[in-house]
Amino acid sequence: MVVLANRFNRRWLTRALGLAGAGAIGASVSPVTINVQAQPAAAAEGAHAPALAAPPTQAVALTADEMDAMHEAGVKAFPAATEGLGGQPLDFVLDGGVKVFNLVCQVVQWEYLPGKRVEAFAYNGVVPGPEIRVTEGDRVRIIVTNEMPQSTSVHWHGLVVPNAMDGVPFLTQPPIKPGTSFTYEFDIRDGNAGTHMYHSHHNSAAQVSKGLLGAFIVEPRLPGDRPMFNKEYTIVLNDGPIGGYSLNGKSFPATPVFTARKGDVVLFRMMNEGMMIHPMHLHGMPMTIIAEDGYLLAREYRCDTINIAPGQRFEALVHATELGAWAFHCHILSHAESEHGMFGMVSALIVEE
Amino acid sequence: MVVLANRFNRRWLTRALGLAGAGAIGASVSPVTINVQAQPAAAAEGAHAPALAAPPTQAVALTADEMDAMHEAGVKAFPAATEGLGGQPLDFVLDGGVKVFNLVCQVVQWEYLPGKRVEAFAYNGVVPGPEIRVTEGDRVRIIVTNEMPQSTSVHWHGLVVPNAMDGVPFLTQPPIKPGTSFTYEFDIRDGNAGTHMYHSHHNSAAQVSKGLLGAFIVEPRLPGDRPMFNKEYTIVLNDGPIGGYSLNGKSFPATPVFTARKGDVVLFRMMNEGMMIHPMHLHGMPMTIIAEDGYLLAREYRCDTINIAPGQRFEALVHATELGAWAFHCHILSHAESEHGMFGMVSALIVEE
Amino acid sequence: MVVLANRFNRRWLTRALGLAGAGAIGASVSPVTINVQAQPAAAAEGAHAPALAAPPTQAVALTADEMDAMHEAGVKAFPAATEGLGGQPLDFVLDGGVKVFNLVCQVVQWEYLPGKRVEAFAYNGVVPGPEIRVTEGDRVRIIVTNEMPQSTSVHWHGLVVPNAMDGVPFLTQPPIKPGTSFTYEFDIRDGNAGTHMYHSHHNSAAQVSKGLLGAFIVEPRLPGDRPMFNKEYTIVLNDGPIGGYSLNGKSFPATPVFTARKGDVVLFRMMNEGMMIHPMHLHGMPMTIIAEDGYLLAREYRCDTINIAPGQRFEALVHATELGAWAFHCHILSHAESEHGMFGMVSALIVEE
Repeated sequence: MVVLANRFNRRWLTRALGLAGAGAIGASVSPVTINVQAQPAAAAEGAHAPALAAPPTQAVALTADEMDAMHEAGVKAFPAATEGLGGQPLDFVLDGGVKVFNLVCQVVQWEYLPGKRVEAFAYNGVVPGPEIRVTEGDRVRIIVTNEMPQSTSVHWHGLVVPNAMDGVPFLTQPPIKPGTSFTYEFDIRDGNAGTHMYHSHHNSAAQVSKGLLGAFIVEPRLPGDRPMFNKEYTIVLNDGPIGGYSLNGKSFPATPVFTARKGDVVLFRMMNEGMMIHPMHLHGMPMTIIAEDGYLLAREYRCDTINIAPGQRFEALVHATELGAWAFHCHILSHAESEHGMFGMVSALIVEE
Repeated sequence: MVVLANRFNRRWLTRALGLAGAGAIGASVSPVTINVQAQPAAAAEGAHAPALAAPPTQAVALTADEMDAMHEAGVKAFPAATEGLGGQPLDFVLDGGVKVFNLVCQVVQWEYLPGKRVEAFAYNGVVPGPEIRVTEGDRVRIIVTNEMPQSTSVHWHGLVVPNAMDGVPFLTQPPIKPGTSFTYEFDIRDGNAGTHMYHSHHNSAAQVSKGLLGAFIVEPRLPGDRPMFNKEYTIVLNDGPIGGYSLNGKSFPATPVFTARKGDVVLFRMMNEGMMIHPMHLHGMPMTIIAEDGYLLAREYRCDTINIAPGQRFEALVHATELGAWAFHCHILSHAESEHGMFGMVSALIVEE
Repeated sequence: MVVLANRFNRRWLTRALGLAGAGAIGASVSPVTINVQAQPAAAAEGAHAPALAAPPTQAVALTADEMDAMHEAGVKAFPAATEGLGGQPLDFVLDGGVKVFNLVCQVVQWEYLPGKRVEAFAYNGVVPGPEIRVTEGDRVRIIVTNEMPQSTSVHWHGLVVPNAMDGVPFLTQPPIKPGTSFTYEFDIRDGNAGTHMYHSHHNSAAQVSKGLLGAFIVEPRLPGDRPMFNKEYTIVLNDGPIGGYSLNGKSFPATPVFTARKGDVVLFRMMNEGMMIHPMHLHGMPMTIIAEDGYLLAREYRCDTINIAPGQRFEALVHATELGAWAFHCHILSHAESEHGMFGMVSALIVEE
């Protein structure tokens, strides 16, 4: 289950700063505090390869105090409130033992930073789309309705499905034209548990970049088949025009915050829907990588930086042994920070007593 | 052995479309159906870093039907016929127990899409160069003749050879000047079985990009030393000026199609000769990664997306359990699809009864 | 211990060329022999995303002989002398059982190629910063003094430290303002042995690119806990404005040369402080990867090309069985060679009797 905590004990943020308290932090959100020049959204709509790496304008050099103030404002604003929250569980209805889900593809305005909106292609109005979660052995039916002006299709990335359900236009199905629907139906096979994805497979460089993507989680039939954890988060990475370098459809400081109690074993399900690698670095505690593309590894390994290429998924267990607010970000530093402060693929894991 | 099947049961392509049959598909090849603007070949000749990511021109937005028609034409054209086929087995002669191969470096015009040709540097006239295949314990002699206007050399990437045979000009040998030859001779050592490469190591950013590359496969002395399979394919990835994002020297739909009978165990030997990562995603069935850079892994792992960095090779077994036409492509979506349809690093594995 | 050998038996370089000897090689260093246009340093200062991939100017095509002469001069100049050597062991003083280190952040001019200097941000005047080396169980105190015009902080990348010591401004500490100091103090925990890094975590895309980075090596409390070796080297990769594609702060031919005696087991500690992947390819002998991000792998694996993403560290053992000068370079060929010769992320392992 995706839990995007918007409340946590802010002492981890306030302690070093000597601030008055949580109230003051929430009030500091302001559109001027974030380096909007570093966000490619405005210029990149409709383009395949937005100039994500464009540096901020630097006509006037910042003083140290000016730079620090911008950094401080960004951290203080975290997690900043925005409209719309993707990745929430998708409800289903049962039809004679089949779990029936509905996905509607729409053009929406998506707020990825406070006050910053961009045209997105979205499943059910949100980026990432709602999280689909089923269990090995389930039979699922997913009705996809296209309300966009261009055709689309859905590929169930990582799932072993009949060829006709694979979602590749003209290879396995006709495209889903504007104003029409297509029904996918397949069994979730034993052995296919793990972290998967669903996304457009038509004009996909544009459609996935613009938001037609989501997590598809398969629970094992026997929970004991996979390592134990007591909390989990899903992290969907993207680097398209929707929010630039984004984590669950948002750019820092609008990204979700991850929380744990000391002693928790937290499962992070990480997937890359973008076009660049994103080596995610967790501060403070190692990650134990237990699965790649949903498949359990015969030999787990530990790391602090997991390089995730487009299309890959990794499942990492973190034993929350260390108290505090631990940065968690892409280590391509230009995806995470500019002179104007942290932005993009930045979040934090807060471990409390 | 490289098998580039140009015939297969096209019902997998025609079923969803309700087309008349294979004949109609072959007839649909047309130079206007593919988004040539997305191909960097024309502008990039001679440059080190062609602007591969340049988006297609978008002065006039496509309607949904126009876009779909372009996508359909691309898939219908697959596998499109082009002149020239690289990666075929290189013949040798025996000279007193030594396997003697000949490679000639030439400037050629290479057709990477129907009707689209570009100047290439090629071994024996083809891109990739012919596949060299030997066995542990062999002694090989490879006579390299340079008919190009610039010097060159050959590095046997992955092979353990005497230093003087390593192919680095001024470090291990003089460059092979235009109009001259150089003879490499070395033993194939035990333990060096697996998937390797050969390519230029002189002005290599340009020469390898332009086509001086090929597969070098070493069979084990004892076949039982490596996992069993009953069919195999070699996939050489490149992202240079020759064909843009290419698979075995061709861009989709001129890329090879891979075929299997249900129940086959297919070995894919994948190697990256380009300058970017290429996370190759196979639909439908997991890949079991058995070797990296030729060396067997102590622990195999399964995945559906294998991230291949420049210089790396991975060997993947696929148990062909699922019938149908399964897309197989780089998951950096801008390497595989534009508004004008799929292009570049796209192929399919067709599994038939 | 970092050993940057400037003397070795040059017969490996001279043999193929028939040169007079080492003296002649040293005299050949000349600023005109290296393709300085391929180095982004001049234009990139202050920018986040220097145009590292800009191709060299090509107004006049080189003849084969001209091109070869430039390549030859580069190899003959290797290893070229430059001012300044980073990565040397950092001395400490003991204060009641605490190992006390000092780091001073300064703006310096850094020579990354003979005669080529660029403004760098440096720890103790060198790029990379001095190597910090401690042992599990140590308590360390590191006093960081900021003599730069902008604030900074230090993150101990890979070390498990108390949150207040983690180095993220406004999340775990205030920034270290110009003219001030901050003292980090923490225990080196058991289980944290291995190859780690330290670098700026404030305005980091700029500050790390410009040189605020270094290696942090933790020896195991019990040496028998990790695989044996009898020689080691640390390789810090960067792709920022300081030296462009650099290896230990220098560009080929000013990069360090690595040497071994036949039979040595050499440990290479490789880390990526840049913003791009760097698949490092060693010629001649396989690398056995024993640790990732400092953590020993349950199952080692062999390869000849190790893909290192930003933030990652790999430890590779090389059994020096093969005599000769073996190229060791990034296999993104545009990071290592142009028409004007090898440059950037290129070095060699010289194995002698």
